[in-house]
Amino acid sequence: MEEYLETSPKIIAEIRDYITHGEFRSAADLFGQILPADQAKFFITLTAEEQRHLLTAMEIPDIADIFDELDDQQTLDAANNLPLPFLADIIDDMDPDEAADLLGDLSGKDVRRTISFMEEPEEVLPLLRYPDDTAGGRMTTDFLVLRPEETVEEAIRDLRKSDRESDVPYYLFVVGDSGSLIGVTGLRELVSAEPEQAIASIMNTHVIQIEDMEDQEEAARLMKHYDLSALPVVDRNQRLKGVISHDDILDVLVDESTEDIYRLASVSDTAIEPESGLGRQLRGRLPWLLLNTVTALFGSWVISNFGDLFVQVAVLAFFQSVVASQGGSAASQNVAMIVRGLALGKIDISKAWPIMLRQVAVGMMIGVMIGVIVGVGVGYWQSNPILGLVLGLALLGNMLVASFVGTLAPIVLQAVGQDPALASSVLVTAMTDSLGFLIFLSLAQIFLPLIQQYM
Amino acid sequence: MEEYLETSPKIIAEIRDYITHGEFRSAADLFGQILPADQAKFFITLTAEEQRHLLTAMEIPDIADIFDELDDQQTLDAANNLPLPFLADIIDDMDPDEAADLLGDLSGKDVRRTISFMEEPEEVLPLLRYPDDTAGGRMTTDFLVLRPEETVEEAIRDLRKSDRESDVPYYLFVVGDSGSLIGVTGLRELVSAEPEQAIASIMNTHVIQIEDMEDQEEAARLMKHYDLSALPVVDRNQRLKGVISHDDILDVLVDESTEDIYRLASVSDTAIEPESGLGRQLRGRLPWLLLNTVTALFGSWVISNFGDLFVQVAVLAFFQSVVASQGGSAASQNVAMIVRGLALGKIDISKAWPIMLRQVAVGMMIGVMIGVIVGVGVGYWQSNPILGLVLGLALLGNMLVASFVGTLAPIVLQAVGQDPALASSVLVTAMTDSLGFLIFLSLAQIFLPLIQQYM
Repeated sequence: MEEYLETSPKIIAEIRDYITHGEFRSAADLFGQILPADQAKFFITLTAEEQRHLLTAMEIPDIADIFDELDDQQTLDAANNLPLPFLADIIDDMDPDEAADLLGDLSGKDVRRTISFMEEPEEVLPLLRYPDDTAGGRMTTDFLVLRPEETVEEAIRDLRKSDRESDVPYYLFVVGDSGSLIGVTGLRELVSAEPEQAIASIMNTHVIQIEDMEDQEEAARLMKHYDLSALPVVDRNQRLKGVISHDDILDVLVDESTEDIYRLASVSDTAIEPESGLGRQLRGRLPWLLLNTVTALFGSWVISNFGDLFVQVAVLAFFQSVVASQGGSAASQNVAMIVRGLALGKIDISKAWPIMLRQVAVGMMIGVMIGVIVGVGVGYWQSNPILGLVLGLALLGNMLVASFVGTLAPIVLQAVGQDPALASSVLVTAMTDSLGFLIFLSLAQIFLPLIQQYM
Repeated sequence: MEEYLETSPKIIAEIRDYITHGEFRSAADLFGQILPADQAKFFITLTAEEQRHLLTAMEIPDIADIFDELDDQQTLDAANNLPLPFLADIIDDMDPDEAADLLGDLSGKDVRRTISFMEEPEEVLPLLRYPDDTAGGRMTTDFLVLRPEETVEEAIRDLRKSDRESDVPYYLFVVGDSGSLIGVTGLRELVSAEPEQAIASIMNTHVIQIEDMEDQEEAARLMKHYDLSALPVVDRNQRLKGVISHDDILDVLVDESTEDIYRLASVSDTAIEPESGLGRQLRGRLPWLLLNTVTALFGSWVISNFGDLFVQVAVLAFFQSVVASQGGSAASQNVAMIVRGLALGKIDISKAWPIMLRQVAVGMMIGVMIGVIVGVGVGYWQSNPILGLVLGLALLGNMLVASFVGTLAPIVLQAVGQDPALASSVLVTAMTDSLGFLIFLSLAQIFLPLIQQYM
């Protein structure tokens, strides 16, 4: 994978060279020739000191472009390095939604002082009240509106006058009195219409929209389902408050997938990266691993109730883990299928029972096949057909447990309003481990005289 | 989650009622009032017979809209139900990229006959040569182009004349002689420019683009990195061949995330859903579970070399699984972090060693903490401090193994051009299981006399 998709490594090397030699003005000049997304990618490789020097040599609007591209944490780190009046100028030039995120992340004292230094805080302030993960928290307030009584010609004249670099250039929303959203049209329709037509006559009054306090995932679902490149956000009184654009929704979908992948692997903090510091990794990983130990020790306790068995037939200790491991793998498959199906809206929770039956049926098929193969194989290996029989039956039994628990756990979590991905390996495999041991060792106990006949 | 985001359940119930009573014309009329995305969602709940009746009662362009929304497999199922001349008319009206996907999925004989019935096969035929997962396979050929020497006024006139419902309405690409891509502009720029200006004077000549045979993931990465809502696709000679739009890229990103989640859970077919048939689930899941059994049996073989131990100290059989389980969980965390970091372009593979060192260091910290907690706890529980010591040391050792293998495996797979998500639980936990048993039982062997002193 290329590090900078559209920028030659030569330019990057030159910029780095200037920075190494402290020539920040030359670096900034060259920096201006590459796209903001690549600037951001390069920027985060610099030390805090280098970042500060480079920013000081740059123009405010260009800094704002970089800040718009950085992650929230990266923006905050860079911002904390700058004098507040300078930072206020940058925030004035940032996209309102990113600006609000940054202001929300500053320490309480800095927020007020920064706002006092800003020239146009009114674009950003209304956004501060929305939590990051709501539709309101993802929207921009920088969009173009039309009035229904305007003519197409007037609308085009207004568009020409507006020097805004709007984030959402294609859709044009139409608002009535009191600012309520009443229609949508597109630049294409505007261009194709007769100049004297009223906007009301070319707008579509069926506008797909979302309320400001709804979850950003709902916004993503709407935009994906209806292939929208922009989604208007309204308040409870149908007043247009902002617009979510397609690139915001890409970020939401990617973040949600990351969260699912991490939770399924029992990492509870999605901001953890392999290069994250020790403290952050410990906080995000250790609690789950400790929980895993506790549940594994419960498995040990299950086994300890069969302690005498191992003295009589040590060979049982070889195979108990196969049963547990197989159940764990099968349960992981089920959890992944359900979690993803729920995330993509493909599973209707009211049809939980047919899904459960299907999954248990599949588990039975797989259990029979693996049970027979492994049972016969181990029966030969250990010259003990009864041991093979016990192992095969235990594999089948635990496969049924795995199918049931692996399907039920995420569905139940969803039904009670929790994230189904919390049915992660640790919790579900605790069940398959313990029950796997219990099934295998109980069967061994029952068949013990027969197993011993072959020893 | 609502099933139909924008359609009331009442309308859905009415449509279903008409269908149940065989009144397909009334059903089709009502059906026409809901959005295609919701039509598609409803359509797939019908039986093949109902689908055919409903389609026969509908207008061709409306059917094409539904087919554009369905998954490839769902479209194929519905298409196989229809007479070929009827199907050809529908394909004529579909988005070219979806039409090409469908044609590519038909059986060889049907493809030729369907094409012979089509009125405008020339839009679709060039797309047939691209594999589904390339940039060319994702692009549409239905886009608007301008010439550099045109004036803005002429361009707007052309736009008005074109009655196409273009998929990519905002970006306008400019092609020179021989059809090569030389610039890009937007409707907004067109509207804001003076009527007599030449397109050449308002276009941006730095066009981010992709070659037709490149991977769709690369296209997704470009569009996400640079926040593009459309990406032009060119051939080797820089000729503009098509355009990928933002909703296609959403699909790519979602599909790639699903693939990662499934592979990490050892499900090898991303088309599997909980409601998929037995055959499909067996094919996608059984091979991995069998592989898991084989690797688990290798673990059994490792344990079997310590068979005498269990006769002497049965209690060892209780705790070997804790070591294996802990290592497996820790390795899954590492694999998830690396796989996601690679997918999002956050990990630079040339920095593999620092990442590895960091991960092993984190593993050591976690290993020490869990080793001490569990070692002391089990030492008390079993009144055997040496057993606790052995267990604690084994937990630490296996945590180091997990950090190393869980980090290395996906990085190596990526480096040799394989999907890093193939370092799924089955393969990596095979290592942590076997080495976990080996470490624990070897230590137990060494400390055996001391362990027995406390029994």
